[in-house]
Amino acid sequence: MIERINEIAIELPRPKDPDPNAASAVQELLGGRYGEMSTFNNYLFQSFNFKNKKKLKPFYDLIASIAAEEFGHLELVTHAINILMEGSSFPGDPDIAPLRNAKDQRNHYAFIDTAQSGKPGDSQGRPWTGDNVFNSGNLIVDLLHNYFLEIGARTHKMRVYEMTSHPTAREMIGYLLVRGGTHIVAYAKALEVATGVNVTKMLPVPNLSNRSFDTARKYEEKGAHRKLYTFSKKDYRGIQQIWKGTHPETKEPLEVVIGTPKGAPVPDYSEICEEFAPGISAEDFQEIAKRLQKNAGLT
Amino acid sequence: MIERINEIAIELPRPKDPDPNAASAVQELLGGRYGEMSTFNNYLFQSFNFKNKKKLKPFYDLIASIAAEEFGHLELVTHAINILMEGSSFPGDPDIAPLRNAKDQRNHYAFIDTAQSGKPGDSQGRPWTGDNVFNSGNLIVDLLHNYFLEIGARTHKMRVYEMTSHPTAREMIGYLLVRGGTHIVAYAKALEVATGVNVTKMLPVPNLSNRSFDTARKYEEKGAHRKLYTFSKKDYRGIQQIWKGTHPETKEPLEVVIGTPKGAPVPDYSEICEEFAPGISAEDFQEIAKRLQKNAGLT
Amino acid sequence: MIERINEIAIELPRPKDPDPNAASAVQELLGGRYGEMSTFNNYLFQSFNFKNKKKLKPFYDLIASIAAEEFGHLELVTHAINILMEGSSFPGDPDIAPLRNAKDQRNHYAFIDTAQSGKPGDSQGRPWTGDNVFNSGNLIVDLLHNYFLEIGARTHKMRVYEMTSHPTAREMIGYLLVRGGTHIVAYAKALEVATGVNVTKMLPVPNLSNRSFDTARKYEEKGAHRKLYTFSKKDYRGIQQIWKGTHPETKEPLEVVIGTPKGAPVPDYSEICEEFAPGISAEDFQEIAKRLQKNAGLT
Amino acid sequence: MIERINEIAIELPRPKDPDPNAASAVQELLGGRYGEMSTFNNYLFQSFNFKNKKKLKPFYDLIASIAAEEFGHLELVTHAINILMEGSSFPGDPDIAPLRNAKDQRNHYAFIDTAQSGKPGDSQGRPWTGDNVFNSGNLIVDLLHNYFLEIGARTHKMRVYEMTSHPTAREMIGYLLVRGGTHIVAYAKALEVATGVNVTKMLPVPNLSNRSFDTARKYEEKGAHRKLYTFSKKDYRGIQQIWKGTHPETKEPLEVVIGTPKGAPVPDYSEICEEFAPGISAEDFQEIAKRLQKNAGLT
Amino acid sequence: MIERINEIAIELPRPKDPDPNAASAVQELLGGRYGEMSTFNNYLFQSFNFKNKKKLKPFYDLIASIAAEEFGHLELVTHAINILMEGSSFPGDPDIAPLRNAKDQRNHYAFIDTAQSGKPGDSQGRPWTGDNVFNSGNLIVDLLHNYFLEIGARTHKMRVYEMTSHPTAREMIGYLLVRGGTHIVAYAKALEVATGVNVTKMLPVPNLSNRSFDTARKYEEKGAHRKLYTFSKKDYRGIQQIWKGTHPETKEPLEVVIGTPKGAPVPDYSEICEEFAPGISAEDFQEIAKRLQKNAGLT
Amino acid sequence: MIERINEIAIELPRPKDPDPNAASAVQELLGGRYGEMSTFNNYLFQSFNFKNKKKLKPFYDLIASIAAEEFGHLELVTHAINILMEGSSFPGDPDIAPLRNAKDQRNHYAFIDTAQSGKPGDSQGRPWTGDNVFNSGNLIVDLLHNYFLEIGARTHKMRVYEMTSHPTAREMIGYLLVRGGTHIVAYAKALEVATGVNVTKMLPVPNLSNRSFDTARKYEEKGAHRKLYTFSKKDYRGIQQIWKGTHPETKEPLEVVIGTPKGAPVPDYSEICEEFAPGISAEDFQEIAKRLQKNAGLT
Repeated sequence: MIERINEIAIELPRPKDPDPNAASAVQELLGGRYGEMSTFNNYLFQSFNFKNKKKLKPFYDLIASIAAEEFGHLELVTHAINILMEGSSFPGDPDIAPLRNAKDQRNHYAFIDTAQSGKPGDSQGRPWTGDNVFNSGNLIVDLLHNYFLEIGARTHKMRVYEMTSHPTAREMIGYLLVRGGTHIVAYAKALEVATGVNVTKMLPVPNLSNRSFDTARKYEEKGAHRKLYTFSKKDYRGIQQIWKGTHPETKEPLEVVIGTPKGAPVPDYSEICEEFAPGISAEDFQEIAKRLQKNAGLT
Repeated sequence: MIERINEIAIELPRPKDPDPNAASAVQELLGGRYGEMSTFNNYLFQSFNFKNKKKLKPFYDLIASIAAEEFGHLELVTHAINILMEGSSFPGDPDIAPLRNAKDQRNHYAFIDTAQSGKPGDSQGRPWTGDNVFNSGNLIVDLLHNYFLEIGARTHKMRVYEMTSHPTAREMIGYLLVRGGTHIVAYAKALEVATGVNVTKMLPVPNLSNRSFDTARKYEEKGAHRKLYTFSKKDYRGIQQIWKGTHPETKEPLEVVIGTPKGAPVPDYSEICEEFAPGISAEDFQEIAKRLQKNAGLT
Repeated sequence: MIERINEIAIELPRPKDPDPNAASAVQELLGGRYGEMSTFNNYLFQSFNFKNKKKLKPFYDLIASIAAEEFGHLELVTHAINILMEGSSFPGDPDIAPLRNAKDQRNHYAFIDTAQSGKPGDSQGRPWTGDNVFNSGNLIVDLLHNYFLEIGARTHKMRVYEMTSHPTAREMIGYLLVRGGTHIVAYAKALEVATGVNVTKMLPVPNLSNRSFDTARKYEEKGAHRKLYTFSKKDYRGIQQIWKGTHPETKEPLEVVIGTPKGAPVPDYSEICEEFAPGISAEDFQEIAKRLQKNAGLT
Repeated sequence: MIERINEIAIELPRPKDPDPNAASAVQELLGGRYGEMSTFNNYLFQSFNFKNKKKLKPFYDLIASIAAEEFGHLELVTHAINILMEGSSFPGDPDIAPLRNAKDQRNHYAFIDTAQSGKPGDSQGRPWTGDNVFNSGNLIVDLLHNYFLEIGARTHKMRVYEMTSHPTAREMIGYLLVRGGTHIVAYAKALEVATGVNVTKMLPVPNLSNRSFDTARKYEEKGAHRKLYTFSKKDYRGIQQIWKGTHPETKEPLEVVIGTPKGAPVPDYSEICEEFAPGISAEDFQEIAKRLQKNAGLT
Repeated sequence: MIERINEIAIELPRPKDPDPNAASAVQELLGGRYGEMSTFNNYLFQSFNFKNKKKLKPFYDLIASIAAEEFGHLELVTHAINILMEGSSFPGDPDIAPLRNAKDQRNHYAFIDTAQSGKPGDSQGRPWTGDNVFNSGNLIVDLLHNYFLEIGARTHKMRVYEMTSHPTAREMIGYLLVRGGTHIVAYAKALEVATGVNVTKMLPVPNLSNRSFDTARKYEEKGAHRKLYTFSKKDYRGIQQIWKGTHPETKEPLEVVIGTPKGAPVPDYSEICEEFAPGISAEDFQEIAKRLQKNAGLT
Repeated sequence: MIERINEIAIELPRPKDPDPNAASAVQELLGGRYGEMSTFNNYLFQSFNFKNKKKLKPFYDLIASIAAEEFGHLELVTHAINILMEGSSFPGDPDIAPLRNAKDQRNHYAFIDTAQSGKPGDSQGRPWTGDNVFNSGNLIVDLLHNYFLEIGARTHKMRVYEMTSHPTAREMIGYLLVRGGTHIVAYAKALEVATGVNVTKMLPVPNLSNRSFDTARKYEEKGAHRKLYTFSKKDYRGIQQIWKGTHPETKEPLEVVIGTPKGAPVPDYSEICEEFAPGISAEDFQEIAKRLQKNAGLT
């Protein structure tokens, strides 16, 4: 079970200019095979289905708590997409074609199926699929999978970063490169504990430091690459047995933080009249307010 | 973001006899179009993408907090599947074909792809897909969708209940019928607030009370059908403006509970040697224990 | 546009014993790649998108009118599935597991997603897809496609026939072998007209006469293999320019019949309480009857 | 079964300028989840699989006859796509790249797989799937589904309307908004009869009248929003028990019309040489004409 | 089994200017339903599953050896895509957005998932699927399928040729039109042997000679349309019983060539730094060179 | 390009008793995500798209030559499925239902769509998809992927082995465990050369030696685990720089063999009359023989 916190992981800039095609690229990081739906659901199901949780507690705790962090990444990427879309159309009567800018954009779903928001699909509009979840139940195979998955995810993030200069996309990706980087190291260390093979020595893969990305560097400077969170006040502390020693690239000490990191306020999004979203007129709203007040008597 | 709690929603019985084909039916409730992956992800993305969160706070809070509850339902169904599978095979050398019982079962993935666990797929083995997420951004359309989705989900749960007498499946479904029932009423009341139309009057749909199901009745007797949780210590309290008055079927008073309900310990699962899950031998384990101890020096 | 006729193509026997796994095989003939969804939609879209309809009227008329017949085939296969499923479960309280027989059957969707009815999916439960529609716009390519499609469909029908002795499946397949046989000949003759190559000479493919199938023989004896219908009182008569001469196998004269053939009454299906289908209790029904009477005042 | 009528529902304008990207948006209304393939096939299978047709005749008749109308809508949208594509390329030898304009368009299938025509796929080129058909067999669940489906379909139509000023797209969408609007009201009234809940009171959803759309207003002025057709000369008249009283928005009297409405001539499409469609040269045609004449002797 | 030869079928020009959207069109010829993945895998599985290979040796040999040729076509199309993409971006630090040109291109996968290379997917980015393999096991049905498949493939090639003037795309398509043309004739002749019907008489379909395409004409002039290869030094010579007589269009003598035709060197592709492909720095390379030398001692 | 050799990798036993459900399990090894379609196509596309082939020749040669071996594995698994199916039905007139045994089997496609043969799909009948191909273009990422892929494939093979005692399945899997084992070591050594990290130290994963499988032990005793083949008489010899030293488990010397290994005769399969496969009657065959003889005059 979870407790939900009404915050997102970091504050995202909200520039004036939309970039719908950058948003469609960012969708790959949300609902592509190496996107956040995949990391989140892989670790989620692996934690649900884990055998011998007690005996192998540090590994269970690692996978379970990283799953919890991925929830926040899924949320963050979706918010980034909302912000990238903001202002892609303009209000007006249907007969002036207020969504006309959408016609030549890459992702029609963003305009027809959602109100310029994020979907669990990829950069070509194809939906995320449960086939992306791997869970053999063998600890080594699953850790190796997760290590590879995170490296694949990093590769995709680096490439999408390079596709756009939009500050929101960059801020989000910079942050996720750093946090994803901690997951790569975490799974590498878990693999080392489980097998004795020091796979951290091959990092970073691809061979370009997070510090080469402006917005990632900022988070590394704050030490975000050294910390792993339990995402629980009392559980999952077994990660301390894996997340210790020093960071393989910077040699700084690793640190486990109990709980969920402090986040930023959830952005609110303006009405988009031409999408009928949320589609509540001033009069509707007055009626709703009245009904909310007398709701006790409803039904 | 979330804080994760290492508990599942209720305690599930762990009978001796496995029922792999019942597990395959239960998969429909996990990864079918009307399964928990769908309810969870629909409300998740609807909460991420919500427009005018502040102005329409009670609705946002409702969708956001129900999403949090669905996380626990997804978890619960997956655990039920693990328990339904327990004992489906027996240990032994590969040459005695220890997985031979699997050959004629409906779901080969459960034996080849997972170690007799749950997957985000349905009763025929087809993966859950992001196409199952609907999020128009229009408040009324989305509430109507959710109301229908919950009713579809209830129909499927009632039918799977009828397919098996396995106590774990029944306990889980009984509980979810009751909790799903609260979500139906919640979305009905939200629709009523938003539109003035009292759709609760048509409930229950299908027209058979939860009280007709042994294991559901138990939870209704505890009042589970009257309570909605915020799944947060401080946020999402706007649900109090919607979840008030009386229950449409029982006329008992509705109640909002702050926070996440108290759960049950997460079940642990034994090693399944013939699946190589988790595949850590006694010698391996000793090595792992050593490495965990000296881990500080790793890397 | 169409006018709908409340009849099905032929009368289907309604034996007492259900055969759910035969129903799952028959699904291949409904929603498999070579099933009726495919033949219907291929000819439908080819008729919509046809270029130079006027100049090439006999070809347009042929494809358009066969599409109309395929509507009736889709309907007939779906009814056959309903009948094959009749009696697969028994009524009773949920706690006696009235759907328990379903658990080990091949197609869980038939019990969970539908109320023991037909779906646009195939024998493994996979949905029909629009990818099955081919429409190059080139007349020869499309005719060749249709000729091949019908032969593939015939092959599948012959094999499903051999999988079950259930009288309903056999009656339906026997009839469709004969009618599908006329479509093979029709497209063969159209190809001959368009290219000069007499492809009818290779028929039947596979090389076993429809007369080898008891229930097909019956329809051949009635002359069903010699007739092509316009499925319109006034349009599509251009098929007379293609459907003339003699039948390639029997050498009997071919005949064009104006209009839609006379069918049989649409079967009605009993309530299945354990599926909550249609789920209208006696009390509900009384209320409905009242509301129907006073409906003028509704809204 | 059906009788096919060689007419389309309304006359569509045929402007000179093509708009292939608008055509790709319109594909969502044909083969998207909320497109005409979905409405048509949902009602079709629901009518085939209906339980207790006799007892619940008004509901059966409603679903069966609306399915018949949807056939014509599927046809109309496909024709609109053909017209939107007309003139997207130019004839010429392959080496001058006569399809060069296609290269940067959104939908390559329209140029490679079809000859600039409609396909049962959506705005991103993904095929329609049988998963889009819902048919629980429970009358209330299915009516609620249909009510929601029509509202989802309306939302998508409104948005596609706003994406293009192309007169053909607008004419088609305007008409379908009005006809789809009657289906929303029809399912709302059926739900009211079945449950006693007056869901028409929440209409229109989204909260913008069809009268806000130029081309829809025109059809409302002709009264098209007040009429429901039986699409049969003798069957399906039970809809009269549901479709009566007044229209919820305009308060005008509702009217059942027996039969299929009068349509417009089916548009013919010119040859597109560069697509080899239909690819019949003048010489070919002479040969074909000869073969048609002597066809009696063929085979 | 196979022996692999490090050559591609023909030399492809390597012009300076990339054309990523032409590459996305060419993907249809690689991973679309009528692309090389389909022809290759159809014949491959048909050869594996062939019944009565000995008795029907000429047919088995034909399908088996054409499968071998299709391997080389799959390879050739993939190389053409690599060349079409060459130069689509430029090197630089991530913060200058070196992949910025990719953002508005049709196929994001080519930039995010691959390093500007070919994938087994189609022109809209959808993956090739095993559903594209047809293998009824009936010789006539399978030959008819293959004949149709090749004609469908030819149609798509002709259309993609017309979409771009890029010399690499044209060289590749011109060659494949000629080689695909031999496969059409080969399956036509096989069908004629098997059934007595001379389907070659309808060729070419579509009705435009390969000689109308500059780059195809060149290969016809070299006689490539007259030759069929065994793709084996000692096996598959049974094709000589089918591939004999004269070419249906040119009346030139057909010729069987023993073995695999002489090809051209495999193109090498430069590093794409901004894709991290292959991502081996100068320092890395030195380390690798050292490790290669001392590799004997590794492990 | 390739030269095809009319041999399969090893001789497979042909026992009398069929096992169609074991065949359906084996399909996972053919067309599942970790089946031979995946290994073959991953390495194939990686070899086609390789950057800097010359500079990184040993790696290119490794991937290219292993791709060539996978062709033979794909072939071998498909033949195993054919043999597992042999005798699943019996000949007879359609009206005695000669395919009746098929009705309750797991995989209807094997009887309806193929003539009891292998398809590029998995154990639940779902088709292989191009999404299973990963090719980032970054050498380390791709090698790590391949290492993981082979380990996933080994896990699946081990489990399917345990599901059946059928000698054909076991012989095939035993052999492939050994050959797949060499690929695991080969990619491990390549990773070590590329990164300096000795991942072979974690092998075998899962932690059970191939020697625990009767039929694998046999091949290890012949030294099959020590050899890597170039699958070319003259190319791909760069693998010698990677495949040297000793085997990580047995410490025996590794050996590169030039060329393709000697195989076994391709099995021939009897006619299956009740599948109409190949469907050539004695009379047909006489006609075919005549036509083959006079073929020179055809067309």
